[in-house]
Formats: sequence, C-alpha cells, structure tokens
Amino acid sequence: MARGSNLSRLGDFNQTVLFDAIRRAPAGISRVELVSETGLTAQTVSNIVRRLLDEGMVVEGGRVQTAVRGKPRTLVRVRPTARYAVGVHVDPATLTFVLIDVAGQVHQYARRRTPQAPGPDDVVAVIRDEVQRLLAAADLAPGALLGLGVAAPGPLDVLEGTLLNPPQLAGWAHVRLRADLREATGLHVLVDKDVTAAATGERWAQGGARHHFVFCYLGAGLGAGVVMDDTVLRGASNNIGEIGNILVAPGAEDLGIGPPGSLAATCLPQALVVRAQRLGLVPAGVGSEDFVGVDEVFTEICERAYAGDARCLELIDDAAAGLAAGLAVMVNFLDVDRVVLGGPIWSRISSRMLEVLPALVQPQLVAASGPLVIEGSAVGEHVAAQGAAALVLDHFLSPRPAVLVMD
Amino acid sequence: MARGSNLSRLGDFNQTVLFDAIRRAPAGISRVELVSETGLTAQTVSNIVRRLLDEGMVVEGGRVQTAVRGKPRTLVRVRPTARYAVGVHVDPATLTFVLIDVAGQVHQYARRRTPQAPGPDDVVAVIRDEVQRLLAAADLAPGALLGLGVAAPGPLDVLEGTLLNPPQLAGWAHVRLRADLREATGLHVLVDKDVTAAATGERWAQGGARHHFVFCYLGAGLGAGVVMDDTVLRGASNNIGEIGNILVAPGAEDLGIGPPGSLAATCLPQALVVRAQRLGLVPAGVGSEDFVGVDEVFTEICERAYAGDARCLELIDDAAAGLAAGLAVMVNFLDVDRVVLGGPIWSRISSRMLEVLPALVQPQLVAASGPLVIEGSAVGEHVAAQGAAALVLDHFLSPRPAVLVMD
Repeated sequence: MARGSNLSRLGDFNQTVLFDAIRRAPAGISRVELVSETGLTAQTVSNIVRRLLDEGMVVEGGRVQTAVRGKPRTLVRVRPTARYAVGVHVDPATLTFVLIDVAGQVHQYARRRTPQAPGPDDVVAVIRDEVQRLLAAADLAPGALLGLGVAAPGPLDVLEGTLLNPPQLAGWAHVRLRADLREATGLHVLVDKDVTAAATGERWAQGGARHHFVFCYLGAGLGAGVVMDDTVLRGASNNIGEIGNILVAPGAEDLGIGPPGSLAATCLPQALVVRAQRLGLVPAGVGSEDFVGVDEVFTEICERAYAGDARCLELIDDAAAGLAAGLAVMVNFLDVDRVVLGGPIWSRISSRMLEVLPALVQPQLVAASGPLVIEGSAVGEHVAAQGAAALVLDHFLSPRPAVLVMD
Repeated sequence: MARGSNLSRLGDFNQTVLFDAIRRAPAGISRVELVSETGLTAQTVSNIVRRLLDEGMVVEGGRVQTAVRGKPRTLVRVRPTARYAVGVHVDPATLTFVLIDVAGQVHQYARRRTPQAPGPDDVVAVIRDEVQRLLAAADLAPGALLGLGVAAPGPLDVLEGTLLNPPQLAGWAHVRLRADLREATGLHVLVDKDVTAAATGERWAQGGARHHFVFCYLGAGLGAGVVMDDTVLRGASNNIGEIGNILVAPGAEDLGIGPPGSLAATCLPQALVVRAQRLGLVPAGVGSEDFVGVDEVFTEICERAYAGDARCLELIDDAAAGLAAGLAVMVNFLDVDRVVLGGPIWSRISSRMLEVLPALVQPQLVAASGPLVIEGSAVGEHVAAQGAAALVLDHFLSPRPAVLVMD
C-alpha cells in the first residue's frame, strides 16, 4: 500500500507505475495487458502511453492476435536508448565501468587498475576521467543520462554515500565517495554495497522466474548478496552479506587473514597467496595488503593449476571445500534454490569450482528443497558495475525503488 | 503491481485492501487517511467502509481534529470479534493452542503434552478434541471462525500441508497433517513451519516500526525465522531457517546430536541432557529421542542452575557461548538489528541467556550497524501458535498473503 511521493521523477506516480510495467516486459506489452497489470483504468493507460510515446520513452511495434475475432493488439515497448546510466565498481584491485541503457544493454565498457596510493582522491580522479571518456564516446542526447551508480566494499553508509571503514581499502575510512564524485562529475551519484549491486545486476539479467538466490561475491573481499522472492535484500543498515567470518575449516592454520578456518581465510585470494608462499610455490615478498600484487600472484597460481600443477590445484580445491561449507550454511539458513558465484576473481577459478562444488555442497544440505543449482554469474565480471547502473535506473524509473538518497 | 485474483474472500479486491489497512491501524484510521494509504478514490473508500460497517467488520468511534478549522474526522477501526482463528503449535514435547480475534487478542489458551506413541494419529485426535473444547468454550457466532493454523517442525511441504521427514518427530514421515486435520475438524486448515509461524507471531506483536530481525526458535529442534523490511521470509521451498548444523564450537565432543560442535549439538535440550548425563549430574537412562523425558530432565538442570549449582549453570553458559557464535553468523550475514529468542524451552533459560548473550555476541559482529538488540519474544511461549493463527487471518484478510493453499 505504500506509495511514494518523491518517486515520480518522470511525471506522476501512475506514469512511473506504467513505465515500470513496460520496461519489465522486454518483448512488448499491450494496453489491455497494462490495464490488468497495473490496475489503472483503460483511459488512464491510454493517456499515459500517449504521453510516453510523445516523450520518446516508449515505441509502438508489433501486434498480437489474442482472440479468433477482434482486432490485433498493438504492443508497446521501451525505447532502450531513451535513458542511460553509468555504473562503476570499486574493487581494491580493479575499477570496472559500464554505460547501460534502459534495457540493460551495455554500450560502453572499461577496466582500470585501482590506484593504490596515496588514497581515495586518486580513485575519484580516475573514475571522473574514465566516466567522461565513456560519455564522450557514447555521445548521448542531452538529458538522457540519469546518473552514476557506484558499487563499493562495505561497510558503508548508503544514505550518506560514505565508505565507513572498508577492511579492503586502507586509508578509506569515512570517505564521502558520493559527495566527492558528485562534485567531480556533476552527475547524480548513488553509492551502494558491492554485493547488493551484484545481486541487483544478476537479478536484472535473469529475467522473469521467481528468484531465491544467494550471490556469492569473490574478490579482494568476500560477501553475499541475497535475492528472496525477486527482492534484493539490503539489511537494516544496508550492509547485508558479511560472511567472511563463518567458520568452515576448524583447525586450519592462522594466515593472518580473518579468523583461522573462516571463509575469508579459506577463499580470499590473499589467503591462497599466503598459503602458496608458505608452501614455497611462489616467492615471498608480496604482502596481503598489496592488492594488485596479490591479484597477479593469484592469477599465476590459477594458471599453474590449470596447466597441471597438482599443488596449485590443491590450493584451489581447499578453497572449494571451504566455500562449499559456507554455501551450505547460507542455503540451509535461507532455503534458496540457487547459488550464483561471481566477482573479480571468479573467472580465474570458475571452471574448477563448478566442477567440484556440487558434490561438496549437496551432502551438507538439510532442507527439503529440490536440487540446488550452483552456477556462475550470467552477467560476468562487470556484474557489480551493471548492478550499480541498474540501481540508478530503478531509482529514477521504479515506483518503489530501494531507499537511496542521491545528491 | 501484482494483483491477486483469488484473494478476495471477503468481497472484491479493493475491499480486502481497505480492510487490511484498517486492521493494521489498531488506534483507528480516518477515511481521508485511508484514501492516501490505499490510493483508492474517496468515493470508493466511502462506499466500502459503509459496506464493512453494515457487515459488522468495522466500527466507527472517536474523532480527531486534524486542522484548526474543518470538521473533525471520524475514525474507523476493526471490530476485533468479527472474525477468529485457531492456532496450534506442534512441538515434539508440547502442543500449544490459542484462539485469537482479528486484533490478535487471545481468547482461549491451552497446553497439552504431545502424545509420544504410536504416531501422528493420536496427535490429530488430541488436536481435534482440544480445538473443539476451545471453540465450545468461546461460543462464537456462526461464520466467525476463519480456520485452523498449524505450526509444525520442518522440513515440510507447505503447499501440500505435509510433514516430510521431521528429524524431531520419528514416524512422522509424509504425514498429511492438513488433510487429516481438515477431515477430523471440518475446519479450513493451513500448515506452516514452526519458525515461520513464530516470526509471524512476533511480527504481529511488535507493531509499527520497520523490522529486520531473526527469530531464533529454541525447542526440541532449533531454527530461525527471518523478518526483513517487515516481511516474513519463507524460502524457495517454504523451509527457511535450518541453522542447526552451523559450526560454533570446533573441537567439541560428539554427543550423537547433530555434527559435533554444531549449534544443535550446543544448544538443544537433548544435548545439554547428554552432557549432564556424561558429567554424572543427572542419572543416565533418558534417551535423546524421548522428548518428554528430555524436557523434564532439562527443566531440572535449569532449576538447579538457578538454585546455585555451578556445574549446571556452566552447561547453560556453554550453550550461550555456542548460541552467541551462531547468532553472530546470522546477524553478520543478514545485517539485522535485532535478535528475538523464543520457543518452548526459552522461558527456562531466558534470564541467564539475556544476562550473558550481549557481551558474547557483540565482539563477533563485523557490520557497521548500530548496537544489536537481543531480546526475548514479546509474545511468549505461545508465539508459534499465535503466528499460525495470524497466518490464517492473513490468508483470508490480506490482499497479498503468502501463498498457502487451504483445504
């Protein structure tokens, strides 16, 4: 019953409701269907569709014959390039950028190394430059860009757009990322947690079915986004998904990364690097705070594992065993029927993980649900950036978006 | 935007929407407020309120002066005794019964020992007899009783109303509890998981604030219900909340109850009884499948702990330490700001648990949220029965209830 008063950025509330119904039907939808979808009267639907056509937000195209007699119904669909949003994913090792349209199609894409020193100012500058480059290349119509969405490691204050004290970003305590980027780019800016953005991006890509899944995010940090009944959960302080301390390997050695035997100490790339160093598989010297260095050594470990190095493969398999125990905890607790894996390191370990995880997880499940689906992200490495951009679209175009203040 | 077609048991959809808005405003609500709450027109609100008054579902009473000028607004509120529901909670040791009205007030209450042998038929008979006794005592008007809600241990098939293979109820595999009770009582029957019913009961009792909490259910089994953003989560197969296998005490001895060191092996009454037996604190002889026997020995352990027996108190403190670790896993994962504890054994351990849990949990929290509230159920021992009855009210009276088929 809740109705938004400040949500009607494109006109009145009914127009927002109607446009949202149209954009969620990518194959097109008839006015008659819109009446039954939204509960609005035929007259209201007709008037608003006319207005949306005039404004270039939707187009007509295609007809369906729904009855033996009667005239065919004209379909309305969104004009994808009517509006755009930029998404940026700030990972300690990598910055990922996408420019998407209303239909979620990626028009521009870029990756950059995250500047490691001296602090967030450099990162803001890099984001500003890259966003300007993307927008120049895209050459959008004036007013077509809705804003910039940023996915960042937690914990963060989503309402203030502030990073609180992300353990993966030393020196980033209380950075007002939204305000700084607003000032640097002149765009509307929204900041959200990386796992929430990733779950949002995945939810968009998955289409129509009834979704209950955990998105397990693997990067320089580890987290989980949750989609229950098609809704991306956020948590009381918008910081859902802190799973790194879950105990999965009792008796494991202390690596100086999270509690010994925890999910973080088992699955983070820096944990695998420290273990490889201790085993003499790779040279010592790269500290676990050096995210770019860790990322490179981690890549080497994965490449050697796939090239046949049994001891490197064993490191990945140990991580898989720990991850399996952590996934079982989450699946048993929330009764999801799907686990989606993704994030910046996922593509380097995905083929081995998908090979071994199902047999490791299944015996640990206690619920009555059907077989659990374990799969890689349908979006890929830019899922969090895609989700951050999708959150901007939702903020402006949905009648009931998550509560996210924009500058 | 989803609209229900089969939800309008009391009339049309708009009437259901309006009645739901009225019953969620226990202090009363004016027609003007109803217009802004529901988005219906003033004329529609006026017509439907008139119909609800005629049918005795709501009453007028009280006026509020909302402006300096203008006539005071008449408030409409639900007539609590217009409709009723019965709730039954099937715990392996105890059956709890309540009869509640639309406002959630308890009119009848009863507890019985759960028959232990030979199987479910006896339990169905006991439930039938007790429900008939309650209804005879209440002397309701014809048509006032909406139905019977049953809270039962999982896993279960909520859509079929069938217990699948509850580990706490030997011999209860694939019992068609809803069909059996429908036949035995002639009432509409709904079956749901105990933790979901308990979370629902707690949600009803907590009133208006924005809720994110985990309801940790402690009985002959252990589980968790989850409320996020005021919504009771159910899970893909309606079996949310299996937390018993979460590892909380690595290196703990094997008690033959769940995985060693798991939450179940740390907190279940049968685990404390086995430990007490091994320590020679209580006589051996009561098996952990004898739920009534375990319940009695567990009561003795608690009473001795409170009377000053340090070794019995230590058993409860060990359970508290394990429970704290499990609560930290759930709070960190879901970013809830409140944990509510309840269930059949809760009142026996609550005072010690509430004394020690906060200091045990707080250091294990990693999220950025404010202080975590840890509290006992506001409803008490009948919370799951209350919730089962509330689910029946929701089924008939809410425009968007959970999907629960009734016979």
